[in-house]
Amino acid sequence: MKSIIGEIKEITVEAQELINHIGETIKIHGSIYKIRKMSDFAFVLLRTKRNVVQCIYSKEFSLFSLDEMKEESSVIVTACVKGEERSRTGYDLQMIEIEVLSKPVEPSPVVINNKCVDTSMETLLNFRPVTLRNEKERAIFKLQEGITYGIREFLKKEKFTEIRTPKIVYAGAEGGANIFRLDYFGREAYLAQSPQFYKQMMVGVFERVYEIAPVFRAEKHDTSRHLNEYTSVDFEMGYICSFEDIMQMETMMLKHVMEYLNEQYGDEIRLLKVKLPVIKEIPAIKFKEAKELISVEYHRPIKDFDDFEPEEEKLLFELIKKKTESEFVFVTHYPSPKRPFYAMDSVENEEETLSFDLLFRGLEITTGGQRIHGYKEQVEKMVRRGMNTELFESYLMMHKYGMPPHGGLGLGLERFTSKLLEQENVRLSTLFPRDINRLIP
Amino acid sequence: MKSIIGEIKEITVEAQELINHIGETIKIHGSIYKIRKMSDFAFVLLRTKRNVVQCIYSKEFSLFSLDEMKEESSVIVTACVKGEERSRTGYDLQMIEIEVLSKPVEPSPVVINNKCVDTSMETLLNFRPVTLRNEKERAIFKLQEGITYGIREFLKKEKFTEIRTPKIVYAGAEGGANIFRLDYFGREAYLAQSPQFYKQMMVGVFERVYEIAPVFRAEKHDTSRHLNEYTSVDFEMGYICSFEDIMQMETMMLKHVMEYLNEQYGDEIRLLKVKLPVIKEIPAIKFKEAKELISVEYHRPIKDFDDFEPEEEKLLFELIKKKTESEFVFVTHYPSPKRPFYAMDSVENEEETLSFDLLFRGLEITTGGQRIHGYKEQVEKMVRRGMNTELFESYLMMHKYGMPPHGGLGLGLERFTSKLLEQENVRLSTLFPRDINRLIP
Repeated sequence: MKSIIGEIKEITVEAQELINHIGETIKIHGSIYKIRKMSDFAFVLLRTKRNVVQCIYSKEFSLFSLDEMKEESSVIVTACVKGEERSRTGYDLQMIEIEVLSKPVEPSPVVINNKCVDTSMETLLNFRPVTLRNEKERAIFKLQEGITYGIREFLKKEKFTEIRTPKIVYAGAEGGANIFRLDYFGREAYLAQSPQFYKQMMVGVFERVYEIAPVFRAEKHDTSRHLNEYTSVDFEMGYICSFEDIMQMETMMLKHVMEYLNEQYGDEIRLLKVKLPVIKEIPAIKFKEAKELISVEYHRPIKDFDDFEPEEEKLLFELIKKKTESEFVFVTHYPSPKRPFYAMDSVENEEETLSFDLLFRGLEITTGGQRIHGYKEQVEKMVRRGMNTELFESYLMMHKYGMPPHGGLGLGLERFTSKLLEQENVRLSTLFPRDINRLIP
Repeated sequence: MKSIIGEIKEITVEAQELINHIGETIKIHGSIYKIRKMSDFAFVLLRTKRNVVQCIYSKEFSLFSLDEMKEESSVIVTACVKGEERSRTGYDLQMIEIEVLSKPVEPSPVVINNKCVDTSMETLLNFRPVTLRNEKERAIFKLQEGITYGIREFLKKEKFTEIRTPKIVYAGAEGGANIFRLDYFGREAYLAQSPQFYKQMMVGVFERVYEIAPVFRAEKHDTSRHLNEYTSVDFEMGYICSFEDIMQMETMMLKHVMEYLNEQYGDEIRLLKVKLPVIKEIPAIKFKEAKELISVEYHRPIKDFDDFEPEEEKLLFELIKKKTESEFVFVTHYPSPKRPFYAMDSVENEEETLSFDLLFRGLEITTGGQRIHGYKEQVEKMVRRGMNTELFESYLMMHKYGMPPHGGLGLGLERFTSKLLEQENVRLSTLFPRDINRLIP
């Protein structure tokens, strides 16, 4: 071989570095994604860590038979990087030799190497281990990685400390029936619905903390926006003047994420045709006013005075978008009965909490607010709600021994990703979704 | 007030920035950590996000009464940063005014503002919401944050993609009895013992993946090194030539973590008097040889031929340290019956797996190895073990439709932190530990 192609520098190269090796013979490994046979040559697409790379097979320069390659084989390709002005990449990758490391036993029952996986969501999810190999499918999760990297970069700069809190807990933070129960060595335990109690405790320790981790909700809803296990981006911060400080922090965080994605995830943005939202100021509207506005503008009678119907969230999005161009909107001052016992009520109106939701493209992606930091106030609210404060002794320790004014939020990572990609279903932004009917794979 | 101290620039300052504000009047907020009254003045320690800052109270310049401050009050201090050569920091922080944002109802029953929290581990953990406020206690978890930041920085550079896999699963990856059961809408489900199946699947997608997330083990052991919920740092990589590639990657990762901590967590390293291990090459020894070496050197009969006793791990550490100066040692080629069904057996000796553990200062902190990537080989090994392969249909999908040679590891974050700090008990490196007796707080 060496005599044929002259001097060889067979270094192993990453897809993105190919452009720096024009004129050289290199090695690159990956899975054979697709073979497109033409009359006297073939395009061979190689799926590498992040990019699908086009190679060219031709008897002119390839020293092996095309039959040696199968789609989804793992191979090491020896190739010559030929400068080629007509190519979009600036080079042609001429395959010289291959080493086949492994072969599939049979071809995937779902076609995974077209532009999209053209099948039902059911099948898409049933065959996750292979359907995720589709270029666009996996790009969703690369982009999702980018969101968390962007969030962490921002929160680190703002001096938040990353924490890790337990998921097996002795009491639910959110109350209600949607909690998974567990036998814990003969005692009843639960799966954490949120890191709420712990992140508050940690405000007393580090002032600003965050966690990106799974949470569990035993919701029986089988909708396009519910998951029974999802990733919650939680932050909590002390020394706030008002719950609006938290909204401000989230606005800055989201701006940073968009800049980060724009800088570092251009490939995925182009591939998925993502329209990153432009974030300037995010408008805020009181819950009650939003309900009335939607009712008036769309001639809808208000049925539920304590919560939005999903349809109302979409209509609010339309209204706000038209008026302000913002695709985000904060809804503030949710009614007290709908918010958890740790939510701080407004001084002016005890029926309202100093809380907010953030809606993005018509879907709630964040819930946040100011928390009660005074011991007396917290105990009183719990008693008013008929709660047994003894069960919450360790939670109330922080209030008793001193806590700064504080608040925070939880952002659903999958919902955020899903809306960013304008998907119809949050499951599409979840690697292995869990819902009332799905536990496999 | 303004007339007394002249021109005021009351900007809010972070503790680390104080040195840049000598001669200025600033605001800084935090919790009153400790008040040390002297004859005619007082030292007031303020606990801020990361540092405890010493302020000076004196009637000479303080415009409020010392009685207004209580330990664990949350306050905003207006202070003058006076240059002072005799001070270790280069300045004195003279308190002018305070604004008290909140006060504790009563003082903590455990003294938290001495050098260490001087109490039993039981009490330390029972009062976690306050004992974590101790300067050294919280530094442990700041340093732990640094470990994960260092790991992520390294793995990103090495082109690993961060993934998020489900914790509610349909089958355990590690087998055995130590699995938590869960009622999942009328079906039996489990809590993930590791992300094993999912990270392997994702190698078929991104080639290199990692996850830092909780895992759950229903072990009934109540020892100093077991937790029922812990943080697993998992990575998995394709296109390996041998399981030693994984050991090599871990060695580089640990080196990077040490450099990262050294650069960014100097305050915590000094406070906790951490001796960072010097990592060059990490020696490796075969399991069988290690057993024999310990037996011969310490005249101990071998009782268990398939595993180490904890005491043996400590003795091996001593031996290796003496011989090579390394505080880490890889133990390789564990016996096949002791390793999971996905472990690849050695071609030379089917009784041995191509696997390893990493011991650090006498404790196993990592388990890793090469996995079976061939469908036939994997099914055969499962059948040999009497497993029902139908239950693993979705897991086996990746093998069937093509997988590269691959392997990976799981590192216990709390064990690693704990050994880095030379602690006696892994619970001390866990914010809110879960063990057979502890579910609260």
